Amino acid sequence: MCFRSSAWCTMINTLYLPEIREMLEEEDELGLREFCTALHPGRTADYMAGLDPGERWRVLRHADPFLRAQIFIYFDHDSQVGLIESQDRQEVADLIANLPPDDRVDLLEDVDPAVIEELMPLLPQEERWDILRLQAYPEDTAGAIMTSDVAKLPETLTVREALNELGRQSQDLETIYYLYVVDEHDHLRGVVSARQLVSRLGKPDTRLVELMEDDVVAAHVADDQEDVARKVARYNLLAIPVVDDEYRMLGIVTHDDVIDVMREEATEDAHRIAAVAPLEDTYLKTHLVTLSWKRGMWLAILFFTGCLTAFAMRHYSSIQQQWVWLAWFVPLIISSGGNSGSQAATLVITALATGDVTLADWYQVVRRELLVGVMLGGFLGAIGFVGGLIVLHSFHDAIILPCTLLLVVTCGTMTGSLLPLVLRRLGLDPTLMSNPFVAAVMDILGIVIYMRIAMLFLE
Amino acid sequence: MCFRSSAWCTMINTLYLPEIREMLEEEDELGLREFCTALHPGRTADYMAGLDPGERWRVLRHADPFLRAQIFIYFDHDSQVGLIESQDRQEVADLIANLPPDDRVDLLEDVDPAVIEELMPLLPQEERWDILRLQAYPEDTAGAIMTSDVAKLPETLTVREALNELGRQSQDLETIYYLYVVDEHDHLRGVVSARQLVSRLGKPDTRLVELMEDDVVAAHVADDQEDVARKVARYNLLAIPVVDDEYRMLGIVTHDDVIDVMREEATEDAHRIAAVAPLEDTYLKTHLVTLSWKRGMWLAILFFTGCLTAFAMRHYSSIQQQWVWLAWFVPLIISSGGNSGSQAATLVITALATGDVTLADWYQVVRRELLVGVMLGGFLGAIGFVGGLIVLHSFHDAIILPCTLLLVVTCGTMTGSLLPLVLRRLGLDPTLMSNPFVAAVMDILGIVIYMRIAMLFLE
Repeated sequence: MCFRSSAWCTMINTLYLPEIREMLEEEDELGLREFCTALHPGRTADYMAGLDPGERWRVLRHADPFLRAQIFIYFDHDSQVGLIESQDRQEVADLIANLPPDDRVDLLEDVDPAVIEELMPLLPQEERWDILRLQAYPEDTAGAIMTSDVAKLPETLTVREALNELGRQSQDLETIYYLYVVDEHDHLRGVVSARQLVSRLGKPDTRLVELMEDDVVAAHVADDQEDVARKVARYNLLAIPVVDDEYRMLGIVTHDDVIDVMREEATEDAHRIAAVAPLEDTYLKTHLVTLSWKRGMWLAILFFTGCLTAFAMRHYSSIQQQWVWLAWFVPLIISSGGNSGSQAATLVITALATGDVTLADWYQVVRRELLVGVMLGGFLGAIGFVGGLIVLHSFHDAIILPCTLLLVVTCGTMTGSLLPLVLRRLGLDPTLMSNPFVAAVMDILGIVIYMRIAMLFLE
Repeated sequence: MCFRSSAWCTMINTLYLPEIREMLEEEDELGLREFCTALHPGRTADYMAGLDPGERWRVLRHADPFLRAQIFIYFDHDSQVGLIESQDRQEVADLIANLPPDDRVDLLEDVDPAVIEELMPLLPQEERWDILRLQAYPEDTAGAIMTSDVAKLPETLTVREALNELGRQSQDLETIYYLYVVDEHDHLRGVVSARQLVSRLGKPDTRLVELMEDDVVAAHVADDQEDVARKVARYNLLAIPVVDDEYRMLGIVTHDDVIDVMREEATEDAHRIAAVAPLEDTYLKTHLVTLSWKRGMWLAILFFTGCLTAFAMRHYSSIQQQWVWLAWFVPLIISSGGNSGSQAATLVITALATGDVTLADWYQVVRRELLVGVMLGGFLGAIGFVGGLIVLHSFHDAIILPCTLLLVVTCGTMTGSLLPLVLRRLGLDPTLMSNPFVAAVMDILGIVIYMRIAMLFLE
């Protein structure tokens, strides 16, 4: 009953460890079996986090094969790979045969190919084929995240027969909450929810064909995983069936995979916005050279863009020599433009991602950003004017700052809001390194605007 | 069977509209009823998107009250509020009584209070109390997103009795996939999944107490919604029970609400990273003054920080007058520091959010960022050196650029990675305006480093 803070849970986990170790030492069969079955499998896995791989495996032996797989899927990815590579091949093969098909394929991707070669012949033929089939789908598609354990039933079944069939298969299925009705060639004909079955318990001879919803929200096997996730979220589904070109049912994507996809995509978007190419691994596990490359290539592009600022500064060198104080405010002005631009870009990017803004709204977005830009620019300009007066002791000089800030900030919000819209219009990802790029554009524009206004007032 | 692109779906929706309008004109009872029932309720709502509120309401009248509510929840929020405020009070009250309790409370928040005052007396007493109770929970807590429609059953029930009870209640429940077992005082004792019930169909006299999992993963009513979402994701749950201090069961949070929370939080994080205070409404619906305020307050803070750059520039004014070309490279150098810092900050923030990095990893993070910073700084320095040589025609002058870039970029990655860790350590949100703030710090640091190195080489 762990609804306390996670710190509390970690403490408990650590407290529990000596007890598990003691049971292992005493080969306390009964105690270990009790430990494996008493808790939610995810909780059991959490409690084992402090054990070394060999110990974990010895504990798992006391759970039946199905439960063993259930606990195993909650270990972290590295431990899973480690156990698969290090433990007895036959035992590992038995475990793999019990894992959900989609998790299994994800996992085997990171296992040493030499080990996989030894494991494959030990797997039942059906599982072996299933693995090879799922591995064939391209990354980030519905096919790559779907599972093949799904309840497919013929439409002639009655409610009673369907429930019995479900009961028989229930341990092997990833979800029993939707039954998919297919014809003899596996074409998807409809869907019946467990809720509908249960509500017809009073009329157990009703046929599925009478109950089923024949308007099924489905995903194509080649659909992008992000689109699949969006569809599941839109229609509040627990799972979505995946079909091929001929509407044959291949598998399902379940709600937990959708949550994983959404997390992954949110992280990738955040990285792209900050000009980091998406990592394939977690931050700590990415090799330093890869990490540097994924950042360095964008930094280099931004650096080349930034070189234009040096040319702009050189171009306006004479006025800066004449009025030395002009250079003092350059960083302040260009960063104000960059910040207001990044804010606008982020707002538009997130609104595009959630669907709150579409390309058709471009005029409204630009109009809003123009007005917001004028307000923000006016506000910063007022502060800048007071600051300028204090430092420069000259109304005539200080007035340059508010005029510049008003224009620069407005240009910033306009650039920031337009860039993601233009990228989307071109069919590109609106998140593409947009914040630093907006800042780079505003650096150049900021210098030009500032110097032009200064020349206007001073010369 | 809409697994084509959404553009295709929009087209179909528009094509369908004249037909619906015609049916409304001809008062085609049968056709409209068929339209309401033939499709997934979400799909039906999508098809109605082009109708005006009055037309929508007239179509909905042809669905039975339960289905009417099912279709209604897929309308967009504004249309929902509009319909509630504009249509016949008694009909609206009947609809509200059929909505899921959590959606209902969210919705009523945005309805004109005068309308609510008229509606409340028309609602059944039980619903009225439920609304008042749910409204009392603070925003962003488990209490605020939970629903009270949940299957609570006594532990003495048998599988057969439980299934019958479920069948009886199934239309009113938000989910039937978990049954929560409670004692006579509503204390949560355990959970039984529909899967378990179905697998025991052969032994219908088994009591729930024998089947139930008594280690229930639960959320406390005051828990932050983000923690609740994380728990559901961690344990692959379809729903999580919400309990009070005494472990009395108050409601459940279902998977679709978890997906909404995760989306909302991802958007808020992206906004905070770019120094925009989270919006309560969507981008297009937020009032321009609110939008300006949520950005302006952070821009002002960044502007005041930015003023320090003006003082730094003034401080090093004499050397810049002596060596005019020094100023040319200021924007390029400070933006390189800012960009490398934003990259590091974003990577650490997302890794903290997904749990890939914890505070305990701080040493490893800092060590990695130091090495990456040296690599990236060396890389940009090399480009900068070549560029400097071309522009300045002097090895002695150009060498200042690579030395500066190496140091500034390394400081950038260190600052960017440390700031979120420090914010988290202080119990603050690591996303707090971190990217622009890192950039602001690097603007100042960049100028100081650049000028110090220039003085070293030139004087």
